Amino acid sequence: LSESIKPPGLDYIFHPGSTAVVGTVPDSLSRFKLGNQFVRILLENGYKDPLYAVGSGEGEVCGLKIYQSILDIPSKVDYVITAIPNQFVPQLVEDCGRKGVKVMHFFTSGFGEIEDKIGLELQSQMLASARKYGIRIIGPNCMGIYCPESNLAFGMGFSKVSGRVGYLAQSGGQCIMGVKEANRRGIDFSKVVSYGNASDINECDLIEYFTEDPGTDIITAYIEGTNHGPRLLRALKEAVARKPVIVFKCADTGGGSQAAVSHTSAIAGSSLTWDALLRQTGAIRVFSVQEMFDVVTVLQRCPEISGLNTLVVGHGGGSCVQASDDCCRAGLAMPMLPPVLRQALMKVYRTDAGNIFKNPLDINPYWGMDKAREALSAVEGWQGIDLILLHSTPEQDPFVPRDFQYKVHTETLIEWARLTRKPVALAITTNTAPGDDGLPEKAFNQAQEAGLAVFPSVGRASTALLRAYNYYRRRRRANQGST
Amino acid sequence: LSESIKPPGLDYIFHPGSTAVVGTVPDSLSRFKLGNQFVRILLENGYKDPLYAVGSGEGEVCGLKIYQSILDIPSKVDYVITAIPNQFVPQLVEDCGRKGVKVMHFFTSGFGEIEDKIGLELQSQMLASARKYGIRIIGPNCMGIYCPESNLAFGMGFSKVSGRVGYLAQSGGQCIMGVKEANRRGIDFSKVVSYGNASDINECDLIEYFTEDPGTDIITAYIEGTNHGPRLLRALKEAVARKPVIVFKCADTGGGSQAAVSHTSAIAGSSLTWDALLRQTGAIRVFSVQEMFDVVTVLQRCPEISGLNTLVVGHGGGSCVQASDDCCRAGLAMPMLPPVLRQALMKVYRTDAGNIFKNPLDINPYWGMDKAREALSAVEGWQGIDLILLHSTPEQDPFVPRDFQYKVHTETLIEWARLTRKPVALAITTNTAPGDDGLPEKAFNQAQEAGLAVFPSVGRASTALLRAYNYYRRRRRANQGST
Repeated sequence: LSESIKPPGLDYIFHPGSTAVVGTVPDSLSRFKLGNQFVRILLENGYKDPLYAVGSGEGEVCGLKIYQSILDIPSKVDYVITAIPNQFVPQLVEDCGRKGVKVMHFFTSGFGEIEDKIGLELQSQMLASARKYGIRIIGPNCMGIYCPESNLAFGMGFSKVSGRVGYLAQSGGQCIMGVKEANRRGIDFSKVVSYGNASDINECDLIEYFTEDPGTDIITAYIEGTNHGPRLLRALKEAVARKPVIVFKCADTGGGSQAAVSHTSAIAGSSLTWDALLRQTGAIRVFSVQEMFDVVTVLQRCPEISGLNTLVVGHGGGSCVQASDDCCRAGLAMPMLPPVLRQALMKVYRTDAGNIFKNPLDINPYWGMDKAREALSAVEGWQGIDLILLHSTPEQDPFVPRDFQYKVHTETLIEWARLTRKPVALAITTNTAPGDDGLPEKAFNQAQEAGLAVFPSVGRASTALLRAYNYYRRRRRANQGST
Repeated sequence: LSESIKPPGLDYIFHPGSTAVVGTVPDSLSRFKLGNQFVRILLENGYKDPLYAVGSGEGEVCGLKIYQSILDIPSKVDYVITAIPNQFVPQLVEDCGRKGVKVMHFFTSGFGEIEDKIGLELQSQMLASARKYGIRIIGPNCMGIYCPESNLAFGMGFSKVSGRVGYLAQSGGQCIMGVKEANRRGIDFSKVVSYGNASDINECDLIEYFTEDPGTDIITAYIEGTNHGPRLLRALKEAVARKPVIVFKCADTGGGSQAAVSHTSAIAGSSLTWDALLRQTGAIRVFSVQEMFDVVTVLQRCPEISGLNTLVVGHGGGSCVQASDDCCRAGLAMPMLPPVLRQALMKVYRTDAGNIFKNPLDINPYWGMDKAREALSAVEGWQGIDLILLHSTPEQDPFVPRDFQYKVHTETLIEWARLTRKPVALAITTNTAPGDDGLPEKAFNQAQEAGLAVFPSVGRASTALLRAYNYYRRRRRANQGST
């Protein structure tokens, strides 16, 4: 047990005692120079350990003196962020080796991913030199490390709160978009690594790290390709045995693979191979960062899912029909409400329209909370369902003003969700171009702040529930097998 | 030719000379009574012909005197909107018959769609009585008619502008949501009918009407089920021979069918049967109102699509990989840019990173419009592509402030779109909970107002392009066949 508490081998890269950014110019010349931006973002993010700027020209970056060389810095430097043209990289790695640097991150591109073979040569040269000095490399061609715990970050407005999700991403853009997607949905990270060309530290290293990391409960990954098939298979299997792993494997089609070669030089591999590989390991496969954090939302905000029998609750005839279709099409099941429960609901609502209480349940938010409480507590005991899927379509009401409509629907469905101990998800469906009154966003955020698992459509909610269920089922079977 | 100019048989239902709303109470008692709401919405929508309120109690609705009976109204009444409990309907139909009413719309529910057989009996009785007097019935259990030309409407904030799209919808909620979805996306309607239980005027009547209607260029339909299979097949075939028809067939799964029976008493039919039926007719099948107006967007905002070879243009490695995947997965093709064109682009951008000019093209919006103009005019002449798909992911930039990022991306991509005469679509991908600054909505609207076909994801754009292509291909083949 004490072993599992010991931080895994790569942990030191997330906690450098000091950092230097190479590739800055005086702010008086340009505040938009990429090196300068890295410095600014580290400071905005509250980076507390010694921070140094290295670059050309006399002057300051955000109040920091610019050193002409890493070797001029008077103290030790653990971590170096590199934003200089590729041809200056070999000399820099030599200098860093002599300085005792432990980790270098290369934002710099123009290595293995370009067509000209000079790129690949530079990459080999850089690697050989780094190995000589025992320096670990992140990238090149990537964004580096985001770790709230040590105030390392590479994007504006990233959350400063530490969470329980680890994220590794071969693409810088998808990494940033993923962090923003997650933060907006109330999800925080333990550590995030944008690892680009994976010349040294690669997807296997990171998955192995996150598997051991006691600060990480869920592993998420954006991967374009790998050069380490068998090791990745092993790493994923071991990871899944310990915690859920969600993989957004991109470069899955002809066009996508074409794009990936140019992007990170990744050999994308065939879609079928990857599908088989991910299935074997039990990793959850998704097709966008949005879907990735849909699954995290379910894992973090719902209790364990033990089955797929779903009760669909919302208001409106057409809305209920579509919600049921979308739910079933995604792979969930909708058993019929037993007659005795239908009778109970008809009594609560004093109506003979028993058809609207079959599953889906069509309950009007304007019918009041007391009745809803009575109705939902009547079905709560029903063993026939494992999940509750609430759906809200505030745009479907003809008469009520939009703001009132959103308010009533959202508040009511949040209350309904509170009435059950079963796993529950809420889908709020709005128009594609929802207008400039901010109401859909407000409704989404309100439900999310109330702790609910919220989704922009029944299809997205259902798919996320199914994927989480598949993970739990596999885990239950593995646990049974091991006892 | 003169025949085609003659308005089709049902046209009079959209142009009543006078309207009465039955089921009102004095505003002093309740402004929220449903009858009162219909009156208010007609007035808000600028209804200009004589309008009467019928109901109980002395007083006024929005300044209109309340008549106790339709028979008390001193002038003729063409159209009656009914919002009274079902048990009073038989008497009302008799009164309307004697009054010479031509069309009745029943918001009222509690007919064929409820379990109790009293509902079905009431519906038969109502129909028999209506037939005796030659009254046509819309519904029951629906929202009725929206026709900007004659200022008839049933929802708040519907566009007052006449357009070229006809919409028939079995569900009131899906009808309202569809109108809002369309309006927000710059799409206006010729006529819209929410037809509910279809006891008299049904989906076949309406499709036949829209087929003949010279004001309607595109027919859209939300259908849960039909009792007129062979006639619907014929009607759809004839419609598709004249104009594009887009069908959102709901109640497609076990759960959905369960829901549909209770909603509009529709016999949903099996998913396979419907799929076969729609394929045979050449109608375009979609799975939500959002997807429905995605297709309308392509039909209205792009020139005819003659092939599926697509050039994907946007910025960012990961973004390009995903856009390519989503494009290919939807069924579009991405041919490689010929070497001579790649050379040309590398010259424009003075870079040796030729990989980023293969297809997808990875072009940074910050590289400037002059170069983009040069680059895009170089590929414009390439016969290898039929379509251009632009994608924008403003959330992927780490350094630039959000507002500036959205501004540059959106303005640049609008300009790029202007540089081509090929069919072009723009996908703006944002986070699920995009925050409260309104920037994603603003970008969407800005591109839309510039005339572009805009979508919230590459997948949605690609699917809509494919569906429109399938329609055009079929039409070209039919035209070849007939010459």
